[in-house]
Amino acid sequence: MPQTTSKISPNLETFANPKSERDYTIRIRIPEFTCLCPKTGQPDFAILHLEYIPNQYCLELKALKNYIWSFRDQGAFHEAVTNQILDELVATIEPRFMRLTAEFNVRGGLYTTIIAEYKTVA
Amino acid sequence: MPQTTSKISPNLETFANPKSERDYTIRIRIPEFTCLCPKTGQPDFAILHLEYIPNQYCLELKALKNYIWSFRDQGAFHEAVTNQILDELVATIEPRFMRLTAEFNVRGGLYTTIIAEYKTVA
Amino acid sequence: MPQTTSKISPNLETFANPKSERDYTIRIRIPEFTCLCPKTGQPDFAILHLEYIPNQYCLELKALKNYIWSFRDQGAFHEAVTNQILDELVATIEPRFMRLTAEFNVRGGLYTTIIAEYKTVA
Amino acid sequence: MPQTTSKISPNLETFANPKSERDYTIRIRIPEFTCLCPKTGQPDFAILHLEYIPNQYCLELKALKNYIWSFRDQGAFHEAVTNQILDELVATIEPRFMRLTAEFNVRGGLYTTIIAEYKTVA
Amino acid sequence: MPQTTSKISPNLETFANPKSERDYTIRIRIPEFTCLCPKTGQPDFAILHLEYIPNQYCLELKALKNYIWSFRDQGAFHEAVTNQILDELVATIEPRFMRLTAEFNVRGGLYTTIIAEYKTVA
Amino acid sequence: MPQTTSKISPNLETFANPKSERDYTIRIRIPEFTCLCPKTGQPDFAILHLEYIPNQYCLELKALKNYIWSFRDQGAFHEAVTNQILDELVATIEPRFMRLTAEFNVRGGLYTTIIAEYKTVA
Amino acid sequence: MPQTTSKISPNLETFANPKSERDYTIRIRIPEFTCLCPKTGQPDFAILHLEYIPNQYCLELKALKNYIWSFRDQGAFHEAVTNQILDELVATIEPRFMRLTAEFNVRGGLYTTIIAEYKTVA
Amino acid sequence: MPQTTSKISPNLETFANPKSERDYTIRIRIPEFTCLCPKTGQPDFAILHLEYIPNQYCLELKALKNYIWSFRDQGAFHEAVTNQILDELVATIEPRFMRLTAEFNVRGGLYTTIIAEYKTVA
Amino acid sequence: MPQTTSKISPNLETFANPKSERDYTIRIRIPEFTCLCPKTGQPDFAILHLEYIPNQYCLELKALKNYIWSFRDQGAFHEAVTNQILDELVATIEPRFMRLTAEFNVRGGLYTTIIAEYKTVA
Amino acid sequence: MPQTTSKISPNLETFANPKSERDYTIRIRIPEFTCLCPKTGQPDFAILHLEYIPNQYCLELKALKNYIWSFRDQGAFHEAVTNQILDELVATIEPRFMRLTAEFNVRGGLYTTIIAEYKTVA
Repeated sequence: MPQTTSKISPNLETFANPKSERDYTIRIRIPEFTCLCPKTGQPDFAILHLEYIPNQYCLELKALKNYIWSFRDQGAFHEAVTNQILDELVATIEPRFMRLTAEFNVRGGLYTTIIAEYKTVA
Repeated sequence: MPQTTSKISPNLETFANPKSERDYTIRIRIPEFTCLCPKTGQPDFAILHLEYIPNQYCLELKALKNYIWSFRDQGAFHEAVTNQILDELVATIEPRFMRLTAEFNVRGGLYTTIIAEYKTVA
Repeated sequence: MPQTTSKISPNLETFANPKSERDYTIRIRIPEFTCLCPKTGQPDFAILHLEYIPNQYCLELKALKNYIWSFRDQGAFHEAVTNQILDELVATIEPRFMRLTAEFNVRGGLYTTIIAEYKTVA
Repeated sequence: MPQTTSKISPNLETFANPKSERDYTIRIRIPEFTCLCPKTGQPDFAILHLEYIPNQYCLELKALKNYIWSFRDQGAFHEAVTNQILDELVATIEPRFMRLTAEFNVRGGLYTTIIAEYKTVA
Repeated sequence: MPQTTSKISPNLETFANPKSERDYTIRIRIPEFTCLCPKTGQPDFAILHLEYIPNQYCLELKALKNYIWSFRDQGAFHEAVTNQILDELVATIEPRFMRLTAEFNVRGGLYTTIIAEYKTVA
Repeated sequence: MPQTTSKISPNLETFANPKSERDYTIRIRIPEFTCLCPKTGQPDFAILHLEYIPNQYCLELKALKNYIWSFRDQGAFHEAVTNQILDELVATIEPRFMRLTAEFNVRGGLYTTIIAEYKTVA
Repeated sequence: MPQTTSKISPNLETFANPKSERDYTIRIRIPEFTCLCPKTGQPDFAILHLEYIPNQYCLELKALKNYIWSFRDQGAFHEAVTNQILDELVATIEPRFMRLTAEFNVRGGLYTTIIAEYKTVA
Repeated sequence: MPQTTSKISPNLETFANPKSERDYTIRIRIPEFTCLCPKTGQPDFAILHLEYIPNQYCLELKALKNYIWSFRDQGAFHEAVTNQILDELVATIEPRFMRLTAEFNVRGGLYTTIIAEYKTVA
Repeated sequence: MPQTTSKISPNLETFANPKSERDYTIRIRIPEFTCLCPKTGQPDFAILHLEYIPNQYCLELKALKNYIWSFRDQGAFHEAVTNQILDELVATIEPRFMRLTAEFNVRGGLYTTIIAEYKTVA
Repeated sequence: MPQTTSKISPNLETFANPKSERDYTIRIRIPEFTCLCPKTGQPDFAILHLEYIPNQYCLELKALKNYIWSFRDQGAFHEAVTNQILDELVATIEPRFMRLTAEFNVRGGLYTTIIAEYKTVA
């Protein structure tokens, strides 16, 4: 199963979808996302829920894990980083559908979740 | 990320939606809402669940927390205050969609939840 | 907030809907319903879940509690009493929508739930 | 509330629907179904979930309990017995809708659930 | 109930659907799937959730258990093996509908689930 | 199994302990206790948890159910009624040990539980 | 591993404890116990929890399952049958410690659990 | 049941223990405690769990509720306020035992609980 | 942190306890244990819970994982294999205390758990 | 409430125990601990549970949060870092009792928890 490194991010790699003639769904829960708050420099934590229908490529899991780790020292706003990750994953594998849900840990007594979707035009 | 204070309420502030070309959803759970019962003067407590699709603006979280706290000493009926908060948040950020769910604590053996929605005309 | 006593049941009272121009939902969980089995005279217990979209009137909660208590000494079949309560509440506030779900406690090893709805004709 | 014995099964009885002019739903959970495996003679156990919209008749609960007990010494395959019970209950009360879900206990490390529905033609 | 061995896999057997004139659903949860990672040779574990509407044949459970066990010593990628199992089960019983959900155990901090469906053309 | 009516309460009955030479424990959960508040006349509800080690007699369950029902129309303070029930059950069967836990439903935002024990002197 | 049939019950079998020099604990949960009520003839159901420290013998599981099934057509009071099963298992394997907990299904709104223990004299 | 106002706090009232000859336990869960952070002025929230063995007096519940409300506008450190409430309740009813557990809501990503006990010298 | 291979099992490795002057506890949950039933050849599955107080050595985790995998193709009775694993781990690191709990998956409707402990003589 | 910076770690601060004459317990749950694996450089995550009985000093929470964050870029073995944190906190406030429990996220299919305690000599 040869893997290809993404042009979008050097951390991302892909492999050929083994059943591209069928629409099927891949869900990946990633409980260990952490980045920094751009205002305060304090750590933020989130659980990411990724769901997609692959087209020609699937996301290689070990590389995906490294890609997620690459945010550890970056400043990132909740709304912006969720859309950025969705955009980079979409650009890497051009899926038929992708949704990213980011459940951030409580801050100031508020619990924030961001949900963003990508769909190909039918 | 410059912030703008709301004309609706001095407690509310907004920032520019970083991905306004996409419809995506922001959910905020706020477990610490408290106000006073207008009849008896006794404290009421609720968990608020806010969900919206931003248009040009998003709600700044620290200001939202202060806005929620501003009800601490106000008398408020369940049905009225839920609609009032929805109206003020809608007027502040003019979202594409917004829903507010207020789960009030038990009173007299009854558990009341109010759910109100706002949608722009398609 | 002046209240009006229901013509349907002296136990029920109403108040004017503070936001009648919007369709919004009120949910009330009532875990302490009890009546008597008409066959055996033995107590029955249920959790009631009421959900409605008010039109011009809302149900006053303290009166609703008294109305629910008024069944304590009445004989009532599961199916009949659920429909009777729905009918009386609908007649009292003429809502745009109302659903009553009655989860009765186990009897003879069987757990019975009755769900009845009222809708205005669109 | 006069009751009528079913022609389908002597164990089943019915009573007149007290609100036949309204479509409403009756759910009955029956956690104590047991029969015998036709292959091995060993006991099988299931939780039955019955849901129906009555037409002219409702199922009397005590008789339903006896009907369920009547399978205790019968050999029955999962798929066949679920459809048989649905057919007999439908024939007895001719409901507008009925669904029977049978969650069987684990056998050979596999957990099997059968879901069958009946609908009148609109 | 005569059983027929599948031409697709010698481990699979079928029996005649006892109620083929009705569309009904069979759900089977299989918590003990294990195979080997083709890259590392390390064991992988998954919970399989199978749901189908039978046409002329049903899956015999004891044979299904043996079929699942036959993957114990095989190398298998998550995406490929889920589609392979769905394909083999579909080819064996030609159901009206079938969905297979495979929840894999955590690997590298990531939790992966694959969901694939088969439908006959209406 | 002959039963004896209690001198303490006409609702209670006993039967001979079938294994009085062994200390063993009987737990009975009774989720349907209801009485009236002596101050307000409003219904109170509780879940009772009874645990005892029988000596010569056990509590007959159907009679115990009737005894619990006999409080339905009585005014009773939480602390007093829990101790009264314990005293009456102890006087009826003279057990080696008995504990009664009464979990009352929320009143005024407070959840009250009373736990009382009886032990024979060793 | 040669097995020995119990003299106490032909359904029970034992095998030699593989580590009799160590006190260790075996817990077996048996969710499918059913017998008949001696008063009414109606089925009763229970979950049995068995815990023991073996001495020279352990309980063979398949035989234990058959022993539990042998109560299916027997009339049995809750208190008596729990003590009887404990006595028969103790007589069969003479363990260092054994406790049997029988959680019976709800009857008449009451949930009964019986807990009986056996200990060798130190 | 005459009530006596506490000298410790005008909000607290007591009534005579109806069974002072027995050591029994009263548990009260109070989910609606709120005060202000002395450093920041921001609201704090906690669930209080009170447990005591009464001596001559019990805590009157409605007055206890008012006493808890009296902290709504007071600044209070977690450790200090938990010990203060325990001291005031002990001084009011001089119980044989009392424990107060205060579970504070998350602040700065940390969840703090304070547990303090009072015992009479044996 | 140099590691030492166990003489007991080539799969096990140890490292020096970084705080041997303190008694502290290490708990490891291992949800992926599988072996074969010696009677039937069918797979068995268990969740292992290991808890120990190290003396001079700790168990290296990656090697422990390989050791657990080494049972995949071995026939093993529940009682014997639990005691064997405890014995081999104790012989490898000579801890101050060790307990192994093995929760096996349901077989024949029975759920078995084995708990074995090792303690040094005080 | 004057605060004192710890000599042990510049991140830790203390304040005077407001009730040092009473033994009471402070529990702090810290779900956002992260460090790096010294072998692989990959992030590790843990939930810390701290419990202590203060003597003359308490831990200031905001400083404790900063102290916990200071491990974000440090390599740390599970066993060593748990004991190190306990030692540094004990040295800072010299409590009467302290226990630290560190629940690490799954690695290699294994879930590790470390529990270490400190007690003053009585």
